[in-house]
Amino acid sequence: MRVTDLIEKKKLGHTLSDAEIQYLIDAYMSGEASDYHMAAFSMAVYFCGMENAETTALTMAMARSGCMLDLSSLGKNSVDKHSTGGVGDKTTLIVAPLVAALGGNVAKMSGRGLGHTGGTIDKLASIPGYRTILDEDNFILQAQTQGVCVVQAGGALAPADSKLYALRDVTATVDSIPLIASSVMSKKIASGAKNIVLDVKTGSGALMKSLEESHLLAEIMVSIGKSCSRNVTALITDMDTPLGNAVGNALEVEEAIAVLCGRGPKDLQSICLRLAGEMLALVHGGSAVHWEKEAVAALSSGKALKYFKGWIRAQGGDESIVENLSLLPHAKHKMEIYTPQSGYISHIDTQKIGQASLLLGAGRNKKEDKIQMGAGILLAAKRGENISKGALLATLYTDDTSFFAPAKEELLSAYVFSDTPPKDVPLVYDVIR
Amino acid sequence: MRVTDLIEKKKLGHTLSDAEIQYLIDAYMSGEASDYHMAAFSMAVYFCGMENAETTALTMAMARSGCMLDLSSLGKNSVDKHSTGGVGDKTTLIVAPLVAALGGNVAKMSGRGLGHTGGTIDKLASIPGYRTILDEDNFILQAQTQGVCVVQAGGALAPADSKLYALRDVTATVDSIPLIASSVMSKKIASGAKNIVLDVKTGSGALMKSLEESHLLAEIMVSIGKSCSRNVTALITDMDTPLGNAVGNALEVEEAIAVLCGRGPKDLQSICLRLAGEMLALVHGGSAVHWEKEAVAALSSGKALKYFKGWIRAQGGDESIVENLSLLPHAKHKMEIYTPQSGYISHIDTQKIGQASLLLGAGRNKKEDKIQMGAGILLAAKRGENISKGALLATLYTDDTSFFAPAKEELLSAYVFSDTPPKDVPLVYDVIR
Repeated sequence: MRVTDLIEKKKLGHTLSDAEIQYLIDAYMSGEASDYHMAAFSMAVYFCGMENAETTALTMAMARSGCMLDLSSLGKNSVDKHSTGGVGDKTTLIVAPLVAALGGNVAKMSGRGLGHTGGTIDKLASIPGYRTILDEDNFILQAQTQGVCVVQAGGALAPADSKLYALRDVTATVDSIPLIASSVMSKKIASGAKNIVLDVKTGSGALMKSLEESHLLAEIMVSIGKSCSRNVTALITDMDTPLGNAVGNALEVEEAIAVLCGRGPKDLQSICLRLAGEMLALVHGGSAVHWEKEAVAALSSGKALKYFKGWIRAQGGDESIVENLSLLPHAKHKMEIYTPQSGYISHIDTQKIGQASLLLGAGRNKKEDKIQMGAGILLAAKRGENISKGALLATLYTDDTSFFAPAKEELLSAYVFSDTPPKDVPLVYDVIR
Repeated sequence: MRVTDLIEKKKLGHTLSDAEIQYLIDAYMSGEASDYHMAAFSMAVYFCGMENAETTALTMAMARSGCMLDLSSLGKNSVDKHSTGGVGDKTTLIVAPLVAALGGNVAKMSGRGLGHTGGTIDKLASIPGYRTILDEDNFILQAQTQGVCVVQAGGALAPADSKLYALRDVTATVDSIPLIASSVMSKKIASGAKNIVLDVKTGSGALMKSLEESHLLAEIMVSIGKSCSRNVTALITDMDTPLGNAVGNALEVEEAIAVLCGRGPKDLQSICLRLAGEMLALVHGGSAVHWEKEAVAALSSGKALKYFKGWIRAQGGDESIVENLSLLPHAKHKMEIYTPQSGYISHIDTQKIGQASLLLGAGRNKKEDKIQMGAGILLAAKRGENISKGALLATLYTDDTSFFAPAKEELLSAYVFSDTPPKDVPLVYDVIR
C-alpha cells in the first residue's frame, strides 16, 4: 500500500477500505505519511466525500491512535455531551451538574475556544482556582463521587485527530462533513462514555450554516456512534442567534449560575432542559420528555446548583462565586452600544457577534493567544424584538479600551432591522436517534 | 493576504488574481507557505481548474522564482523543443542536430526520466564521456559554435516548479492540466528560447490519455507562450504505441543514430521531420512543409549526422559510437519474447511497455534509483501488424536475469490481438499555433 495511491483513489471518487484508512492514519502517526499527504487527502475528501463506512473507519482509526479511556468503573451511567460550537453556548456548565443531580455520570473532556466560538474549558478556567487538568484516576474518581468532572482534553486522546484537525485548520479543509464527523466522534469514542448526546448547531454562528448540512452531519455522527456500540442522540439546535445574552468566559459563567438559580434567559434554560432530558433518557431509559420534567424539578429545587457547587469545589474552584459573583474576573472597562435605528431585529449574524467578542479579548485567533477572562458582550435585545432607536443594544467589556472601536463596528454590522417581525424559528429543529 | 485564504478561494472555485498567485509562489519559496499548503492548493486546482490568466500567472511566478536564462547572444535563432513524455521518445537526439544543421540554435535543458517515461538526459548519459552538466557560459558558447547543446536542467531554473512538481508527484496531483501547463512552460520560459515547439503526446503511453485533454493542454501552453512573447507551436502526436522500436537509454541512442544515418523506423523518422519543420519555420519563417523538405535533405546528405557528431564531441562524448555501436553500453543478458497468439496487434498499452522497461532496470521509480544504461526493450512488431503465434514479439535486455520474469509479464499484458486490423491513427493529430 502506498500513501500516494490512497490519495489518488480518493481523488478519483472511489471508496477506501477499512484497512486502507487504518493504514493511512497509522502512516500519519508513524511519519510515513506527511502533512502534505494528509492535506491533499483532506482536500480530496472535501470534494469527493466519504461513504458512511469510510467515515466510521476514519473515526475508529483516529480514536485508536491514542489512549482509549475506560469509563467502565462508572457503570452504564457515563454520559457525554458535545456541541459543534457556537456563540454564547455555556450549556455544559448547566447541563453537567443537572444530569449529575439525576444520576448521570458526566466525565467529560472539553476543548479550548478557537476563532469565533468559545470553549467550555476557557469558561471554567475563569472560575478562581478551577483545575482544568487532572490525572486519569482523579478524573474518574471525581466523576464517581460528584457525578461530574470536566477537564481539558489532553494530547493523549485521539492524537491523530488533533494532528489532522490542526492541519485542516490551515489548509482550508475544515468544512467537510465526513471530516468534521470523524473528528468529533473520534474524540468522543476515545473519551469512553457509553451515552453521548450531540448538540449540532445550525445557522450563522455555527460551523454548519444550513439545516441540510446539519442534518447530514448529525445523521452520520449518530450512525458512527451506533456502529461503535454507543448510545447516541443528536439534537439539531438553532445557532442563528447567540444562545442566552452573555458571550465571553466569566460573563457566561455568571449567566450559567443564573440559570442554575432558576433565573437566566429562557432560550438557554430551555435548551439545557432538552439536552438534560435526552442525556438522562439514554442513561436511565424512559422518555426524554419525562426526564426533562425531572430536570425542571432538579433546577427549581436547587439540587442542580448543589451539584454545580460540589463539582467546582472538588475541582479546586471557589464555589462561593455562586453567592458572590464579584469573585469572578471582571473587565476593567465597558462600553454601551445603542440601537442605530428602530425596528424589529430580524437577523443577527451570530459569527460576527462571536468575532466581536474575540476582538474584545475574550477569544483567540491562534492557539497561543492569551485571552481576557472578563472580556465579552452582554446582549440587551434578542432576535425578533421590536426595539427603538437609541435603546441599549449591547454592552461590551474589555481590559483594553483600544479594542472597543473594532468590536463595536463588528457587532453593529451583525444586525439587520426590519419593519416586520422575523419568522419564529424553533430552538430545536430535530432530534436524531 | 493569507495562504489559507487563497486555498479557500480556489477551493470555492473562484479566480485568483495575478498578485495572489505571485504571493502564493513567493510564500512557497520563502517558507511561509508549506508543502501542506501547496498540496491542498494543488488538489483544489485539480478539482476546480484554473482560468488561462491564472495559469499564465502561475507560470510566470514559477519562471521568475530562479534564474531567467538570457539566450539573446544566440540572436533570434534560439529554439527549444519539449515533449510531454512518452515511451521510446528519442526525438531530441535526432531533431536537435537536424535543426542545428539548418541554422537553428538548440540550447536545451532536459530532464531525467521518472516512472514509465524515459528522459533525454539519461539517454545522452549513456554515451561514453558525454557531460550532462555545463556552466552557463560554456552552454551558450557551445550552442553558438555547434548549433546544439543539451544539458541537464539544474535547480536554478524555475526552482518553484521543481519544488511543486516533486510535491505533486507524491500527492496525486500530477494530472491537472493547468498545473502541467504551468510546470512545462515555467521551465521553457526560464530557459530563454525565443522559439518553442511543444510535442504534446496523447494516448496510453502519455500523461494525457485522451485527445481532448491533450488539446486543452496544448492550447493553454501555446496561449501562455504567446503572452510571454515567445513563438510557440504545439503538435499533438500519437503515444498510443511506442515511438520507434527501441525503449531504454543506449538502445534508443542506437536507434537515433540509425535515423540520422537515413535508416531507422519510419514513425520515428517521420515525427522528427515534422518537429524539425515546425522548429525551423519558427526560426526562419516560411512554411513548416518547406522546412520539412529541407530537413529530409539534411538527413540524407549526412549533414545532420555531422552536426550530431560535432555536438557529442563538443560535449565530451565519444563520437565514434556512430561508426562503432559496440562502444555504447550493452546489457549482459537478453531474452526473446514470442507472440502468444496469431492475429493483428490491435492495441499496445504503451505505459505497460514503459513499465516493463523500467522493471528491466532502464528507468527509475524514485529520483534516487540507479539505472542500467544498456537495459530496455527492442520491439519486433508494431501496432497493426498481422503476426503469427510464436513469431518474435520483442527482446528484453538487462544486467539482472531476475528482472526478466516480471518484465515479461508486464510486457505481454500490454498487447491486445484481434482478427481484424485496427483503425489507422495519425502520427500527428493536430498542430496548434
